[in-house]
Amino acid sequence: MALIFEVSEYQERLRKVKESMLRKGIQVLIVSDPANMNYLTGYDGWSFYVHQGLVIALDYDEPIWWGRGMDANGAKLTTWLKHDNIRPYADDYVQNVFKHPMSFVADILREMGWENRHIGVEKDNYWFTGQCLDVLREELPQAKFHDATSLVNWIRTIKSPAEIKYIKEAAKVCEHVMRTAIDSIEVGRLESEAAANVYHAMIKGTDEFTGDHPAIFPIMPSNERTSAAHLGWKPDRKYAPGDIILLELCGVRFRYHCPLSRTVYIGDPPKELKEIADVVIDGIAKTLDFIKPGVTAEEIEAKWREAISGSRVVKPSRLGYAFGLNYVPDWGEHTVSLRPGDKTIMKPGMTIHLMPGIWLDEFGFECSEPFLVTEKGCETFLNFPRKIFTK
Amino acid sequence: MALIFEVSEYQERLRKVKESMLRKGIQVLIVSDPANMNYLTGYDGWSFYVHQGLVIALDYDEPIWWGRGMDANGAKLTTWLKHDNIRPYADDYVQNVFKHPMSFVADILREMGWENRHIGVEKDNYWFTGQCLDVLREELPQAKFHDATSLVNWIRTIKSPAEIKYIKEAAKVCEHVMRTAIDSIEVGRLESEAAANVYHAMIKGTDEFTGDHPAIFPIMPSNERTSAAHLGWKPDRKYAPGDIILLELCGVRFRYHCPLSRTVYIGDPPKELKEIADVVIDGIAKTLDFIKPGVTAEEIEAKWREAISGSRVVKPSRLGYAFGLNYVPDWGEHTVSLRPGDKTIMKPGMTIHLMPGIWLDEFGFECSEPFLVTEKGCETFLNFPRKIFTK
Repeated sequence: MALIFEVSEYQERLRKVKESMLRKGIQVLIVSDPANMNYLTGYDGWSFYVHQGLVIALDYDEPIWWGRGMDANGAKLTTWLKHDNIRPYADDYVQNVFKHPMSFVADILREMGWENRHIGVEKDNYWFTGQCLDVLREELPQAKFHDATSLVNWIRTIKSPAEIKYIKEAAKVCEHVMRTAIDSIEVGRLESEAAANVYHAMIKGTDEFTGDHPAIFPIMPSNERTSAAHLGWKPDRKYAPGDIILLELCGVRFRYHCPLSRTVYIGDPPKELKEIADVVIDGIAKTLDFIKPGVTAEEIEAKWREAISGSRVVKPSRLGYAFGLNYVPDWGEHTVSLRPGDKTIMKPGMTIHLMPGIWLDEFGFECSEPFLVTEKGCETFLNFPRKIFTK
Repeated sequence: MALIFEVSEYQERLRKVKESMLRKGIQVLIVSDPANMNYLTGYDGWSFYVHQGLVIALDYDEPIWWGRGMDANGAKLTTWLKHDNIRPYADDYVQNVFKHPMSFVADILREMGWENRHIGVEKDNYWFTGQCLDVLREELPQAKFHDATSLVNWIRTIKSPAEIKYIKEAAKVCEHVMRTAIDSIEVGRLESEAAANVYHAMIKGTDEFTGDHPAIFPIMPSNERTSAAHLGWKPDRKYAPGDIILLELCGVRFRYHCPLSRTVYIGDPPKELKEIADVVIDGIAKTLDFIKPGVTAEEIEAKWREAISGSRVVKPSRLGYAFGLNYVPDWGEHTVSLRPGDKTIMKPGMTIHLMPGIWLDEFGFECSEPFLVTEKGCETFLNFPRKIFTK
């Protein structure tokens, strides 16, 4: 067992989850999201490509880990759970149209006498498919199913001091990653090579802090590909004069992310790009100044819109989102979104990526800031220059 | 538009999908799997962390791409589709409990007059959640829903010559990656640094072929962590004499994978490990000799079991699986499994990872071979020594 937090911290998280279950009328919670599994038990492995999860019951002390047989030793090695609460299923449940792992979960629930209960499922989570839902409904006709999507994620929204420490370490790695990326962009160099350097920096980390694998690959498109938000580098292309390159990267420390976006231009940036950069960079500063406990997510977005009003910049997509602990495919937590209608009140310990990415039809511009809500305002995790980097 | 295959190849794939739909009584297919989206349209971006997909109708020529607004330019740049068939949704559909992207898809279906049809969904795919299913059922009460999990994946099972070419290039990258991993394991070196070198080799590739990001992170646990199948390196640990290290790695070329597993020992391997290695390596050779078009997946597994019978090696999990084009979290195709009960008949063009991983309670051993079924037998993609690598 190699935990990165005290067992008491995992238990406190579990207590908060049970408190939320109680408020929502959920007696048994089936957790499928690997980040939520890690958050509550420490479980850490690339086994989420098959069905796995936790079962948490209000009146049962520990979460029950269930997963594929070959991963049970991984659960023993990485979680604080008693081995009795690690329940492996036989290998023929894997990708088999005749047998579904949710039948195995239903067996556990029946064995525990929980088959008639109010059961929460992470209904809109990648790791809980339509088939999972239908199998559970068929197996447990007496149960009452509740949508518990993001129930655990909302607990994750407010970070403990120990979590914030890891994110600050991830920020150090992130700074190194972003520097490496900017340094690696050179006329005549393959985009693949720059991306390889970025990955190397992310994984190796700094002399002080080792890194980790990212939940989103390095988003570093060039030229017309910067008009889209989620394209990667072009493997066989070499950088050339006049290139614009977006860098949406991160540092990771024990699955805790710190993301950051910047823009590079090879040569003298065109006027239009400089104008957009000025507006966005000014808007970021004004928005950060406004953030403190008590203001809402939508008020932050409104402040941003006020700051850029009168300019030609428009930003129809959300301005930011909560981030932290995660696995592929997203470092976002699927809770807070900085946009109209999101009435989440900022509280100390929230970590949000202020990401006013601008994607026009011909090119894009990115400059972002991950921040921590503090007792009196907010602080950014990095102090990386906000500007167009030129080469 | 930057396609890696001729448009005619994508159209032929689409034709085969429609043929399969027809056989299964499916008139409209909703595709959510990003690998299937790429296979049919070329779409390539890290945007699958929000809901997106294709709609394919028997009587409509092209797939309809639907996704988030900020990704529509990515669809225009990476697919062969007419721009009219790229349908972006507004950003407030993202992670919003009041609005679900499947309502947007239902709008498209109603607009096209397809709301009463037999509709196939990838029901047990990561990218089609329980909520997706319930929203579609509620939005389209007249539709008849069919489980079309892996319908497209089964078409993908048999690779075209152009696809095999990319996998062979990925194999060259894979060889470079495995060499880099073995070379990087040294007493006193951080596991993170070896992992960083592996990532660098995967992304940069060889002088001949650039690489790409992997669908599974480098699985390279040491010591007791080798008793589990899917643990990674330990960031802050340094290699030491007597270490056993598993390496389950890959090369990637334009999203086409070639996986490979090997085992490293620092020092003189213990007798028990050598015995297991001998049995497994002999079993691999005998199993490969047996494979040819016409034999079934379960017959291959039976041959393996026969080959290792009389030894102390047991292998309760499946012996292998189809692989190829993929995104996170899996390079496996979720179709063929080499195990009892799988009656899939081997056909030329199938690509399968023969992966007899052995995970005992104290340690593990991995040696695998990815192979291509040919007209007369099979051939491995690599010619990498099958042995315990010692340092």
